[in-house]
Amino acid sequence: MTTGASTDFATRLDKTADDTEAVLGRLLADGILPDEIARPKRLMDAMRYSTLGGGKRLRPFLVVESAAVFGVPRDAALLAGAALECIHCYSLIHDDLPSMDNSDLRRGRPTLHKAYDDATAILAGDALLTLAFDIITRDEIHKDATVRLLLTRALARASGIGGMAGGQMLDLAGEGRFGDREPVDVARLQQMKTGALLRYGCIAGALLGQATPQQYKALDDYGRALGEAFQIADDLLDVEGDAAALGKPAGQDAAMGKTTFVTQLGLNGAKQRVSDLLASADSALAIFGAKGDVLRAAARFVAERKS
Amino acid sequence: MTTGASTDFATRLDKTADDTEAVLGRLLADGILPDEIARPKRLMDAMRYSTLGGGKRLRPFLVVESAAVFGVPRDAALLAGAALECIHCYSLIHDDLPSMDNSDLRRGRPTLHKAYDDATAILAGDALLTLAFDIITRDEIHKDATVRLLLTRALARASGIGGMAGGQMLDLAGEGRFGDREPVDVARLQQMKTGALLRYGCIAGALLGQATPQQYKALDDYGRALGEAFQIADDLLDVEGDAAALGKPAGQDAAMGKTTFVTQLGLNGAKQRVSDLLASADSALAIFGAKGDVLRAAARFVAERKS
Repeated sequence: MTTGASTDFATRLDKTADDTEAVLGRLLADGILPDEIARPKRLMDAMRYSTLGGGKRLRPFLVVESAAVFGVPRDAALLAGAALECIHCYSLIHDDLPSMDNSDLRRGRPTLHKAYDDATAILAGDALLTLAFDIITRDEIHKDATVRLLLTRALARASGIGGMAGGQMLDLAGEGRFGDREPVDVARLQQMKTGALLRYGCIAGALLGQATPQQYKALDDYGRALGEAFQIADDLLDVEGDAAALGKPAGQDAAMGKTTFVTQLGLNGAKQRVSDLLASADSALAIFGAKGDVLRAAARFVAERKS
Repeated sequence: MTTGASTDFATRLDKTADDTEAVLGRLLADGILPDEIARPKRLMDAMRYSTLGGGKRLRPFLVVESAAVFGVPRDAALLAGAALECIHCYSLIHDDLPSMDNSDLRRGRPTLHKAYDDATAILAGDALLTLAFDIITRDEIHKDATVRLLLTRALARASGIGGMAGGQMLDLAGEGRFGDREPVDVARLQQMKTGALLRYGCIAGALLGQATPQQYKALDDYGRALGEAFQIADDLLDVEGDAAALGKPAGQDAAMGKTTFVTQLGLNGAKQRVSDLLASADSALAIFGAKGDVLRAAARFVAERKS
């Protein structure tokens, strides 16, 4: 990839992050309930605290760029992306709680339960999770109710016991939280915990674009490869990354004795697996020709990122 | 109401409770994800612990009986009712947590976080909330995708910041959890915290039955009256109820200095308000004639219950 292409990609990513921030800002300012019931201010403030104010917005970016392959209107894809981002943000809030990962800082700021309190953090997570399902059903997302219904159900499955929530459970079990450390199948765990939402971003684009079964499968395969590459890159950063760029100390996985892709495959094996996944992602996108270029760049970005 | 009618009603309520238990049992045994991903056993066990094993299943009953007014197939209504019950059960799990209401017992059994642990309870609640949105989108609920979409969105709104989650936040604020006790508008708080899901049960029936706007409004008005009567009855039971029948000590609200319908209206005022609400519920149902009889009995049951 040339520096020019790389700059273009960064600009594109930033633009979607800005647009996502704007959409989330509107969703959390008004429009949740177009009726007489006012929203409790403290809860809304807490939801805004954890949802607004930056982040790469990678998941909405995947929705927007997968949808763009089919010429889907950008505003519709941004709204679906915002629903997905609400799920992501809720998961961070709940994962940070004292009884879960007990994290005090996120992106250099106090986590929600530190800035507010545990009860508010639990409720804000619950309300964001619920809001995602309000957003994803909205008429502006797609004129065809069946499409919105498929988007809704897929979002529930990516987020629930067979997806993200289930993956977090397996992760805690692997840390020995419920007795002896349970054996961990890293690939399966991460397919659920982090992979499912990234993959959803890609299939959401296919659903919005009313893809053919072949196109749907291509984006699903791409999303699965990207999701795994994302997590291996994460595990590699924990070993080789720079604490300043990461915004957190490196070496945390090793200190906790966690099973990761690096402990399972070794450093070189993990790097080789990332290369293989990038090749898979590329080849899955082949049927889209040049229309898949941004998604190709997204996979490389995810695999080679420094934070 | 004659003893005969009352017995009929009790039989009908029990039958729907049994059927709901069976549907939930199936949903939590298999069928969540019809694909290759197995579900983490501990999380599924925790979800089953809090969802199966009894309860009046009042919310599913309201769905089933509101839908029956329109001749909706019972299986479809039971499935929608099960989705609603998942939301109700998740809310109890999260409300019981140490950082929320800190309850050790529910229906005479240890609460989920006591039987398992806080992390599992948070995740089980999250997964049940998410599962509700998986269930409510399913094809078996209604052949028309638009109907399922309306059911889905209404469920999100009843459960979220403008509904149940928001109401719980107002309740905590009223208890002085975030500094000074905040002034409480009991009617508004309870419309959100407990009323929204009961009301949803009634409008879900109307949506399933593709009610006319007038019929929809009738069930919405009925559901609102029933929801408020339910809560006033709850507040009255806390003052006048029998601890053995309640399964918990009476007088808890007063001991905590809570603002309730009884503190706001007085004992007689609260009883009078229940009578007025029953009359409203009856008159809302007038357009359904004899087809509204079971719902009329349901309102009386809710208002006069002893536990």
